[in-house]
Amino acid sequence: MAPRFTVTYYVRAADADEAKARALDIALEQTVEIPRGAVPKGYVEDEILGKLEDLKPDPAGRPGFLASISYSDDDVGGDFLQLLNVIFGNSSIKPGLKVEDIGLSPGILGLCTGPRHGIAGLRARAGVGEGPLLMSAIKPVGLSTSELASRAHDFALGGMHFVKDDHGLVDQVTSPFAERLKACIEAVGEANAKTGGRTSFVPNVTGPASAVLDRAKEAQAAGAGAVMLAPALTGYDVVRTLAADPDFTLPIVSHPAFSGANVVSADCGFSHRSFFGTLHRLMGADAVIYPNFGGRFGFTREECLSIARACAADMRGPKAIVAAPGGGMTFERVPEMREAYGNDVMYLIGGALLQQPNLVDACRRLVAAVHS
Amino acid sequence: MAPRFTVTYYVRAADADEAKARALDIALEQTVEIPRGAVPKGYVEDEILGKLEDLKPDPAGRPGFLASISYSDDDVGGDFLQLLNVIFGNSSIKPGLKVEDIGLSPGILGLCTGPRHGIAGLRARAGVGEGPLLMSAIKPVGLSTSELASRAHDFALGGMHFVKDDHGLVDQVTSPFAERLKACIEAVGEANAKTGGRTSFVPNVTGPASAVLDRAKEAQAAGAGAVMLAPALTGYDVVRTLAADPDFTLPIVSHPAFSGANVVSADCGFSHRSFFGTLHRLMGADAVIYPNFGGRFGFTREECLSIARACAADMRGPKAIVAAPGGGMTFERVPEMREAYGNDVMYLIGGALLQQPNLVDACRRLVAAVHS
Repeated sequence: MAPRFTVTYYVRAADADEAKARALDIALEQTVEIPRGAVPKGYVEDEILGKLEDLKPDPAGRPGFLASISYSDDDVGGDFLQLLNVIFGNSSIKPGLKVEDIGLSPGILGLCTGPRHGIAGLRARAGVGEGPLLMSAIKPVGLSTSELASRAHDFALGGMHFVKDDHGLVDQVTSPFAERLKACIEAVGEANAKTGGRTSFVPNVTGPASAVLDRAKEAQAAGAGAVMLAPALTGYDVVRTLAADPDFTLPIVSHPAFSGANVVSADCGFSHRSFFGTLHRLMGADAVIYPNFGGRFGFTREECLSIARACAADMRGPKAIVAAPGGGMTFERVPEMREAYGNDVMYLIGGALLQQPNLVDACRRLVAAVHS
Repeated sequence: MAPRFTVTYYVRAADADEAKARALDIALEQTVEIPRGAVPKGYVEDEILGKLEDLKPDPAGRPGFLASISYSDDDVGGDFLQLLNVIFGNSSIKPGLKVEDIGLSPGILGLCTGPRHGIAGLRARAGVGEGPLLMSAIKPVGLSTSELASRAHDFALGGMHFVKDDHGLVDQVTSPFAERLKACIEAVGEANAKTGGRTSFVPNVTGPASAVLDRAKEAQAAGAGAVMLAPALTGYDVVRTLAADPDFTLPIVSHPAFSGANVVSADCGFSHRSFFGTLHRLMGADAVIYPNFGGRFGFTREECLSIARACAADMRGPKAIVAAPGGGMTFERVPEMREAYGNDVMYLIGGALLQQPNLVDACRRLVAAVHS
């Protein structure tokens, strides 16, 4: 028998019988996808078919059960997309099911070598020993390259550790990718020369499927300090491929664009921790952006902290990464954020700084408040 | 001013004031992602910022409103992933919002040339003039290549028009991709030689981001009749890139694996028609697999028929494609399906055939029932 890994699902059900029937359906659906009576005896039934390992009432009190189902490493076939498919491919389409937790196995850990840098690597790059990391975004779409580069310069001059593209900045005529990349790296470099700081510019990498990997390498060659990708758009293997590529050495920041349906419903998708934590670490993201609580999105404090814990938990292999809550961060909320997240966090703050009369001063005040 | 396209959202709200506030937030969130007061005057405000064009109570009676918001073609920047990001990137993370309909524009139609073949091309390939198309899947994972190829042969001998890999078949040791591809194309070819038929083999294309496009071309070179991809896993631009590549000429069948959260919740994601219909046509899929009503998934009859209508509606450019409902199709349901879908449909049927004592006979009876 090959090693197995276990996925725990929330299964909405009125009683244990219904929950068991639904769980046994998941075990079929995610593996052989034929009626149980048609499953070939021997290897397919013994090894490939999912096995219901445990079923218990939901400890969180939702109307249902937690079902733990094990799958064979053989079923994954060394393919990361197939791992995701085994975890939740067809079952994603059945309402009242959620992936709560994803267990590991030798096969998964061999396939997913994880982030190259992790939070420790990001700290080293930024020269920040212990306190929170800070990231800002140049925006909005529609500004010229020189206007965006000027904002990048000021964020860096103000002491932000990472300055990223807004995730909507692609290759628009107002600021083509290659032009913006060069201008922003130069602008951040000029600011670093003045401050002695080590701010990194983080371009948004997107584009045709045939170009996205090359564009990440173009960013590296140009002197970017990291890249940002939205895995729900580019495809989940793009991050894994880059993180495992010996010729690509930059940290990867993941953006949650287009992934919302995977987490916001109580009735489908993933738990916050398994999606933004476990899955992104397996993928190889070094920092994971998600909407902070108390901002303009609806994540709760506990959901956000569960992501941060999953970013840091021991996974027997993949490095700890940094949770990067964004959206709705303000000066006033710094004490509340420090109390919630402690030091191992990267704050993404943009809009609140851009509303201040002097951007450089605003950044400096923020750095001081966060690191005091 | 550049041309604009309009996206219509369902916005959950208690009253018109709340709906308007939420809609104006979408217009910001999807474009400039900064507070309204910080939006630069001129081009950014006039052109890039989303515009609320219409707001009305939901005609379907849900507790909310329909908000139509227009976006500039300039914001898309010729990038398909950015188009998806403008449509629903960050707003996907806000509960109580759904993309109902996606409007078109010259920019979208220029970027998305659409499916190469469409339903007419699939019919021509299969030699089926008017009736429904039939597709089966070889499965389960864990069988050897020769066992799977034998099933492919029998499906073809029985007259199924398309025989595809199960979407869980990747590169497992029991049946490596290249070996299975060759064996199944040969097996289907042998059956075609016996029947004079034109059955196509449709391999499942997945793998590392650096290999997936090449694997599709490997399938073409080996003599496959189409390829299947799961865009929610591979990334949405992979289908578009292949459909637009002059060196790739096969039809593309899309599989819904991992996409479920985008449609199953009433509270987030997309309407069935906009996701499986409009979006897949813009992407360039020729056939779109989705779970049929009355099977083991929860789509309603009306949701399924809305997908079929969106596959066929006039889009002023992208060809009509074929809806491929799967899951739960049985002999007994043929009359019900014919009444619902008419002729322009591709039935995906597998498990029910594999449970019959003689697979070839079962296929022949199905073909006769569907085409009588």
